[in-house]
Amino acid sequence: MHADPGTVYLVGAGPGDPDLLTVRGRALLEQADVVVYDRLVAPALLTCVRPEAERIYVGKAPGRHTCPQEEIHTLLIDAARRGRVVVRLKGGDPFVFGRGGEEGLALRAAGIPFVVVPGVTSAVSVPAYAGIPVTHRGVAQAFTVVTGHTCGTDAPDWAALARAGTLVILMGLRRLPEIARTLMAGGRAPDTPVAVIAQGSTPEQIVVEGTLETIAARVADLRPPATIVVGDVVALRHALHWFHPDPPDLATARLAFAPREAPPAPPHAHAPSPIHPETGYAASL
Amino acid sequence: MHADPGTVYLVGAGPGDPDLLTVRGRALLEQADVVVYDRLVAPALLTCVRPEAERIYVGKAPGRHTCPQEEIHTLLIDAARRGRVVVRLKGGDPFVFGRGGEEGLALRAAGIPFVVVPGVTSAVSVPAYAGIPVTHRGVAQAFTVVTGHTCGTDAPDWAALARAGTLVILMGLRRLPEIARTLMAGGRAPDTPVAVIAQGSTPEQIVVEGTLETIAARVADLRPPATIVVGDVVALRHALHWFHPDPPDLATARLAFAPREAPPAPPHAHAPSPIHPETGYAASL
Repeated sequence: MHADPGTVYLVGAGPGDPDLLTVRGRALLEQADVVVYDRLVAPALLTCVRPEAERIYVGKAPGRHTCPQEEIHTLLIDAARRGRVVVRLKGGDPFVFGRGGEEGLALRAAGIPFVVVPGVTSAVSVPAYAGIPVTHRGVAQAFTVVTGHTCGTDAPDWAALARAGTLVILMGLRRLPEIARTLMAGGRAPDTPVAVIAQGSTPEQIVVEGTLETIAARVADLRPPATIVVGDVVALRHALHWFHPDPPDLATARLAFAPREAPPAPPHAHAPSPIHPETGYAASL
Repeated sequence: MHADPGTVYLVGAGPGDPDLLTVRGRALLEQADVVVYDRLVAPALLTCVRPEAERIYVGKAPGRHTCPQEEIHTLLIDAARRGRVVVRLKGGDPFVFGRGGEEGLALRAAGIPFVVVPGVTSAVSVPAYAGIPVTHRGVAQAFTVVTGHTCGTDAPDWAALARAGTLVILMGLRRLPEIARTLMAGGRAPDTPVAVIAQGSTPEQIVVEGTLETIAARVADLRPPATIVVGDVVALRHALHWFHPDPPDLATARLAFAPREAPPAPPHAHAPSPIHPETGYAASL
């Protein structure tokens, strides 16, 4: 494919495994003049960017909004107006809690052409790497994806979600005790299987299992971000697990459970935020 | 990456746009000795398979189960036992109504190693190609994916789904009148925006809009398969549409709305079923 200058490509990078980038996503990264990245999954993805291309890191750590969304819009618009091929690289899929819609609206308002390049969403692929199919005949004929990271009136209707099939919660680890209580109050059985997957699809992947009643206590030491799966499909993982991360050595195990030290700031960094807010993969170069 | 002989790779092909295959998916297709495909999105994907590799078509047309699932399991197990690199290529993602879980269980029971390679699910990417983000801040903080193609006790709880955020229904076109009625009876407002996307992400993409009250009548002439999106995010597509399929000529327009004539059977065909059951893209070579 040929990338058009002055166009912004909203590209989904997929989850932590860099080989889950799409063929088009890779072709665009290879042609980009400017790559604006956050929620970055694998540092390896940036190795296919041309050395002379501009790399701009706009990542956020949970709870720290160091590069406001409006600044990102301005960055994208300015680069496109300079006639650059601009790739906006996002973890997972741009339209699954990726704010791709907001960026698209800002670009449209500024008269900048944009193209969406969907990615492999971590809502489906991270459970897959833990051996959990979000749907399975006779077990779950529907799945719901929700963010645990909302507040106030924007919060989802957890009572309604209690009746759904498989429930996949992104960015919900901190609020898991409250979420589990609300789901049980909404009618979901306390013994419903739950899996929490941290650093999903990376060599550092950790999976903790429990039930709605027990899971919160079991993951008290886990650090976000993590993907939470609620539903009977979780039980399939004992027969379906296929991904075997390298056995962690002591250092890795420590890193996975304790807050990491901040790495050196990446070039053009707007913020020293080191960790992908969804997958927990280090976003430093 | 290096593909191991005797291993079965359950690979998601993504939606109709062939460039949405993952980098790993393409590498595996290039190394495969045997490719077992159905729900195939783009004939172009098979062009990267080695000429001497075996291609086995096991696709199904809706309502016709010409190659039973058990036969597919046997095919995969036999090929792996012959020491082949086996790619099982599925439209979208293997674990989103793709029966990847069933195939994984059969392979595990037979002692065959398998690897899951997630794909870009059409549940998210087909709406994206219609300019619809399944989530959008302030509009939808959750989305539910469900199949309309179930019966009896396996049917989803539509009343609960009526209260969810964005609802994405795959394989539900034939039952759309009934589904829309049930959602309204469950409390979803009759003026809730609905989009039906046929041949999503292909040059033949068609998008029809309406509301829960009006949509069924508007798509009466559309042929399945199609992706249905219910929710306020649909209204964003007037500002966010970015994908402009080539203007169809008369022949294309006719093809898109009328049943296609059966093309010649692909090599090794088990059935002459020509159309991808989810995206409607022709699966013939």
